Amino acid sequence: MTAGPAGDTRARLLRTALKLFTEHGVEGTSLQMIADALGVTKAAVYYHFKAKDEITEAVVEPALKELTRIITEAARLRRRGAQVDYLLDGFVDLVVRHRALVALFSSDPGISRAIEKSFFDGGDEDTKENLLGILAGPDADLTAHITAVVTLTGIAMAGGAPHFAGVDDETLRAALLDVARRLHRRPRR
Amino acid sequence: MTAGPAGDTRARLLRTALKLFTEHGVEGTSLQMIADALGVTKAAVYYHFKAKDEITEAVVEPALKELTRIITEAARLRRRGAQVDYLLDGFVDLVVRHRALVALFSSDPGISRAIEKSFFDGGDEDTKENLLGILAGPDADLTAHITAVVTLTGIAMAGGAPHFAGVDDETLRAALLDVARRLHRRPRR
Repeated sequence: MTAGPAGDTRARLLRTALKLFTEHGVEGTSLQMIADALGVTKAAVYYHFKAKDEITEAVVEPALKELTRIITEAARLRRRGAQVDYLLDGFVDLVVRHRALVALFSSDPGISRAIEKSFFDGGDEDTKENLLGILAGPDADLTAHITAVVTLTGIAMAGGAPHFAGVDDETLRAALLDVARRLHRRPRR
Repeated sequence: MTAGPAGDTRARLLRTALKLFTEHGVEGTSLQMIADALGVTKAAVYYHFKAKDEITEAVVEPALKELTRIITEAARLRRRGAQVDYLLDGFVDLVVRHRALVALFSSDPGISRAIEKSFFDGGDEDTKENLLGILAGPDADLTAHITAVVTLTGIAMAGGAPHFAGVDDETLRAALLDVARRLHRRPRR
């Protein structure tokens, strides 16, 4: 773990951790396994992270930061249609680019907890409200709220489904967006 | 556990187990806790079930049997529109009536494993194919497959979401069905 600056090592460690989490689950992956896969000592891993929880949170952090940015930017747009379009584009793109992580989120309680901790508990209250609020719209009724939840969870579950693992990013993105836009009665592109 | 015939006792045991699973997770629930909640000895629980896995499978079994029946009956209908209508009606109703179990399925790996074991691995291959096949339709393209997966996972996640726990069955059923039918371009009722 001496090759390259510390930033590169950290990134390599997180990529390796995500790969091992995918193969063995968060619970089934030890710091020792991460060290072995990187060909370094456990002490070298400890230099970057004091516990597995810290690694799990660091693995999900970039995607959560992107999601927060998408929500904040969508909320700044003036027309409601433009807000929904921006959020659906951004969310679908995020799910497709982070497919491995999203697949873990929907199947591994360790990743779910890390996301809940970082985003849903720790995150800015306005940001969380905005995620569902933008999709459901102002004065949303129950059907609008359910549409928003079905969209976010359904897109995440379908995007991370092993069934579609062989589909290339562009094709998957177009199909997911098509379904998400139909749910929100947005015109097909 | 001497009050009533053995069938009643088993049903009471399964209701108690589901309640404890909801509160503590499958992992966090022991046979001893189930016995204590029922006011019986652990030996009395062992009389019905040899291990927690057997209890978990028995807890999910009635809902899975209902799902299999719904799929089989839908597949027998002649018109494709009628098949989709029947499946959406049945699936939404099942999710609403088994909300507590569905909520666990989307958050507890113990319940997920039991469902996969009983239905997706152990189940009849035709039944599994039919579940997605009926919704996606013959000669389905990627968007049709994704629509089917978004519908089933999104409806299950929304139906089991704590956010909607206070909504009565009839109202929740109508809203979920509205969203599911929109996804499949079926006319509103």
